[in-house]
Amino acid sequence: MPTRLGKYTLRLDNSPNIASFAAVGGKKEGEGPLADFFDILCDDTSFGEQTWEKAESRLQKDAVNKALDKAGLSPSDIQYIFAGDLLNQCTSSTYGLRDMGIPFVGLYGACSTMAESLAVSGIFVDAGAADKTVCVTSSHFCSAERQFRFPLEYGGQRTPTSQWTVTAAGGLVMTKDGEGPYVRQATIGTIEDLGIKDANNMGAAMAPAAAATLQHFFEDTGTTPESFDLIVTGDLGQVGSELLYDLMRHDGVEIQKRHTDCGLLIYPPDDKDVKAGASGCGCSASVLCSYLLNKMGNRELNDILFMATGALMSTTSVQQGESIPGVAHLVHLSNTKWQ
Amino acid sequence: MPTRLGKYTLRLDNSPNIASFAAVGGKKEGEGPLADFFDILCDDTSFGEQTWEKAESRLQKDAVNKALDKAGLSPSDIQYIFAGDLLNQCTSSTYGLRDMGIPFVGLYGACSTMAESLAVSGIFVDAGAADKTVCVTSSHFCSAERQFRFPLEYGGQRTPTSQWTVTAAGGLVMTKDGEGPYVRQATIGTIEDLGIKDANNMGAAMAPAAAATLQHFFEDTGTTPESFDLIVTGDLGQVGSELLYDLMRHDGVEIQKRHTDCGLLIYPPDDKDVKAGASGCGCSASVLCSYLLNKMGNRELNDILFMATGALMSTTSVQQGESIPGVAHLVHLSNTKWQ
Repeated sequence: MPTRLGKYTLRLDNSPNIASFAAVGGKKEGEGPLADFFDILCDDTSFGEQTWEKAESRLQKDAVNKALDKAGLSPSDIQYIFAGDLLNQCTSSTYGLRDMGIPFVGLYGACSTMAESLAVSGIFVDAGAADKTVCVTSSHFCSAERQFRFPLEYGGQRTPTSQWTVTAAGGLVMTKDGEGPYVRQATIGTIEDLGIKDANNMGAAMAPAAAATLQHFFEDTGTTPESFDLIVTGDLGQVGSELLYDLMRHDGVEIQKRHTDCGLLIYPPDDKDVKAGASGCGCSASVLCSYLLNKMGNRELNDILFMATGALMSTTSVQQGESIPGVAHLVHLSNTKWQ
Repeated sequence: MPTRLGKYTLRLDNSPNIASFAAVGGKKEGEGPLADFFDILCDDTSFGEQTWEKAESRLQKDAVNKALDKAGLSPSDIQYIFAGDLLNQCTSSTYGLRDMGIPFVGLYGACSTMAESLAVSGIFVDAGAADKTVCVTSSHFCSAERQFRFPLEYGGQRTPTSQWTVTAAGGLVMTKDGEGPYVRQATIGTIEDLGIKDANNMGAAMAPAAAATLQHFFEDTGTTPESFDLIVTGDLGQVGSELLYDLMRHDGVEIQKRHTDCGLLIYPPDDKDVKAGASGCGCSASVLCSYLLNKMGNRELNDILFMATGALMSTTSVQQGESIPGVAHLVHLSNTKWQ
């Protein structure tokens, strides 16, 4: 049963279990430092499909099927699938998963979706509403660029604070029982908006939300950054990560030594295309479902805070002069279950 | 605690309570047969805002504030808000609710979002993960038309199967205890796609999903249409409702006498603009949070199945020649709690 801790955090007393996970990526992800941790890599960024949007749907479908295979399960064993993405009306998820026949809980948290899905699924499993679920999300550089910025053919220049949308999906199977890692705690984020209006500086727009959620979690649980092996944010990138350190220091909490960001892990640090880091729903999802959960599996990491961050604007809201609200959802993943 | 019934349905043993509800609508909704049940009606479809999108955000904010007022609560009393909408990246919700400081669970189910939010919130409350939540969604004719179809200024002709997007929001407060109505059971829908490609015939695209969810619920619970005072779908309209009757008859279940559709209730039947009925996330949300919950309050209705339906396409997927997947989520609302 979930138990409320403080104002914002839930302790998941039954320690929902991550039974398997899989990551699927494209060419650029296959050239990055995490390539060996991916399950499927494809040099053809279209993944054999006719449009970028269909390619992104394919990424989700492949990630789910691979995770199910690794758990020895089929779609009919799964009670709920928690999914969402950045495309208008979340069509990567709805089209990618439509043939599976799994009850569909559509989520929207922009790039925070993977953490949102882990939190919501964790509550379902912890409460006995399900004993087998799937969480998945994705992004695709080409579908995101043309939807949010410019057609690729335009060859637009990118600013130093801009981030590179990851072409990848990450999916995992959550079960009631198992050998771990476990989802021990979850903090659903509040929407924070400090007035950032630059759509090419998502890291700055999301950092206040990350700081708020992290503070809520530390306050509710009485823990400190030193209680964890790693605090990993979704896709704050370089700019957003540094702002997060500053915001946390302002509240007297030093996280820099324990912190990394999925957007700084997936591509080589000297990749000039990437600018301030990687981003996209698929960034934190694929880094979690490749590198991070592998490192937990071999006990190099035992307790981590996985906090994906989302920028909640649209092209319309930005064109209308609105600032960019952010949200960050956090789950505490551990190799040790509650006793 | 939620208890699984059959393959698709959850029994919410603690009977989460609907403590208050509110509906906000525009000029056309104020001229319809349900006008007296709305809490706030505004002749100015812009609701005093500068853009249609900001007007839609305002609808959500007003619906939540009104529902909170009626329950004697403030935003800081609420542990989670479950919200979503049809605008790209769900900005009606994220901008409308950003100042409230309530942990935000963003959902995407197209026009099924209100039922999805009731189901997910119901599970949270039933499991003890929360004791006070808010569910809200919205739609706006003008923001939807220009996003999904044509600029209003274009004056496009509408086909006989097309539906009129409702300008309204519905919001409610859910609590652990109270006098009812109660959320007794929930069935999360599967994605169904029978190949409908006409974006002006949403009813036909969604009817198979509605039939699947309803069949799942009846099978899992051993109930029949006669077990309920009313089976109310979200926005199938005339065309989709008749298809639903046919699909259910094909499986030997007759629902027509017990059935109505929110899309057929909110506007006068002889309104020629409306064509096959009303639609939009705000359609089922506002009809639930005005007419239906009022009728439950005065005991004219005691047990209803509220099943909102969503068409999960985008303009991009339709332009790429894709068919339109549908989903339908169902909650059983009752004036009697589980004993």
